[in-house]
Amino acid sequence: MTISDLTERALIARLRARVPSPPDWVLTGIGDDAAVLAPARGMVEVVTTDSLVEGIHFRREWSSARDIGHKALAVNLSDLAAMGATPRALLLSLALPPDYPLDDFDALLDGLLTLATSVKMPLVGGNITRSPGGLHIDVTAIGGVRPRRVLRRAGARPGDRLFVTGALGAAAVGLVSLAAGTNECADAQRRPSPRLRTGIIVANTRTATACMDLSDGLADAVHQICEASTCGAEITAGLVPVHPSATLEQALSGGEDYELLFTVPKRRTRMFLTAICQAGEVPVTDIGVCTRGRYVMLVGENDPTPLEPGFSHF
Amino acid sequence: MTISDLTERALIARLRARVPSPPDWVLTGIGDDAAVLAPARGMVEVVTTDSLVEGIHFRREWSSARDIGHKALAVNLSDLAAMGATPRALLLSLALPPDYPLDDFDALLDGLLTLATSVKMPLVGGNITRSPGGLHIDVTAIGGVRPRRVLRRAGARPGDRLFVTGALGAAAVGLVSLAAGTNECADAQRRPSPRLRTGIIVANTRTATACMDLSDGLADAVHQICEASTCGAEITAGLVPVHPSATLEQALSGGEDYELLFTVPKRRTRMFLTAICQAGEVPVTDIGVCTRGRYVMLVGENDPTPLEPGFSHF
Repeated sequence: MTISDLTERALIARLRARVPSPPDWVLTGIGDDAAVLAPARGMVEVVTTDSLVEGIHFRREWSSARDIGHKALAVNLSDLAAMGATPRALLLSLALPPDYPLDDFDALLDGLLTLATSVKMPLVGGNITRSPGGLHIDVTAIGGVRPRRVLRRAGARPGDRLFVTGALGAAAVGLVSLAAGTNECADAQRRPSPRLRTGIIVANTRTATACMDLSDGLADAVHQICEASTCGAEITAGLVPVHPSATLEQALSGGEDYELLFTVPKRRTRMFLTAICQAGEVPVTDIGVCTRGRYVMLVGENDPTPLEPGFSHF
Repeated sequence: MTISDLTERALIARLRARVPSPPDWVLTGIGDDAAVLAPARGMVEVVTTDSLVEGIHFRREWSSARDIGHKALAVNLSDLAAMGATPRALLLSLALPPDYPLDDFDALLDGLLTLATSVKMPLVGGNITRSPGGLHIDVTAIGGVRPRRVLRRAGARPGDRLFVTGALGAAAVGLVSLAAGTNECADAQRRPSPRLRTGIIVANTRTATACMDLSDGLADAVHQICEASTCGAEITAGLVPVHPSATLEQALSGGEDYELLFTVPKRRTRMFLTAICQAGEVPVTDIGVCTRGRYVMLVGENDPTPLEPGFSHF
């Protein structure tokens, strides 16, 4: 059976049957022209949308439908984490090739809904359409955060330390090994773990001056934070937490690691590290310092060299 | 020049240059991991997402890039209108074929932003990616409405009159004529006008018990409202406002007209019609009545016949 055997309405009914009943503050969920949510008291609204496109962000030969569903939400949760926001609700917009197997449709939803349920995030709406090309999955994630706790890219100051979560480069290794037909680090590529709890707890302690996720790699994130904060940075190459299977280059520019980069004033470092411990997700590493000069430099054994942002050509 | 000549970041910078600076309550706009919005006092949040897919919802031979940008937002505004919601902000998720001309990219944004500006709706975020297939445009629209004024599909009661805005079938005629290489009603298909003001003003007067837009046709909308409201309906064929160029069949099942269907208790009909006048967008027509029996019937010159929902096979 493929999705062409069902009407769009039947597909939506199939989706609804898999979705747990939403909490009270979802005043109108799936099945109306739009969803209606009661506002979260004392919170500002955080909204983001990110898409996974077949052939660009995933291949069906490499990732199960379940993994694709998981990743489509995970990359959006990573954006909420980077703002310090608690997840509230999600919308799902699916464009499906006509020959998409119904079992894969179910598995994709299961992957997405399992992650959504684990972070208490109801699916409140969206749409399903055909795609003459590949599979496109667009997720809109809505979160909430207290106004003075929002983590932004702007806010870093010269002297702030730069901390990064986890070990970097594994997603890049996963991509290479999937292309080569092996499995090393494949799940880092296929099933990223957003650092939600870390983002929320750090935001609550107000110890970080800026934050961004590493969706486009560490080098890119350092550049973005420096640009938004009008400062520079010195990254110490020897301190970068390179995943055991990865190279320094992959750790710096690989992308898709979905870790978080924080800037933290020296005097708040201890409180920040306590928050990281409390989150209990993943360790952080001090990799450098924000500088007054507007350059982003990599300090190795030899002279410092400019750290290229390393974003890929569109 | 095509979009492949620019990096993703350069495309985002190009987009930002076209976006007017947002109002104060957009605490963080484009350029961070997510947008941050101050909540609207006394309002509940209304969120919807709808996509336009090349080859399914439009063809580049038939619609200019400007029209495509306009329609991508218009279909979402129609959903807000159907809830009685005032537009607040939008997110844009674009998947672009590598050979997409840069001029079209600019024109698409202009079409979308012109409509967004006319309804005071800032673009606060989104993402841009490549598409190995056709152009995909996903818009997420965020609106606000006072809690007791939300228009839903559920709420119609037996005896309520059914009113529809505008003249129906023009979008279906436009589709046929574009395929035939003529231009009759082409703009009804290419540049729909969402009935925002009508939706908001009717919601404010609290005269309607249910509402839905006609994205999938009148017959579908009547069925959806009846299903959600657990009632039936009798539509009088001779009362349906058929566009001069369209057939009754096109008016009933054509879809994409983006008009609104309301149910209104008899005693509130006069107030409802005053609200429609006040909105000043488009006239409404009384086309029938909600019934206790759960059937949706079309009453013509002969015996009543069941009105098929007419949704298309996926």
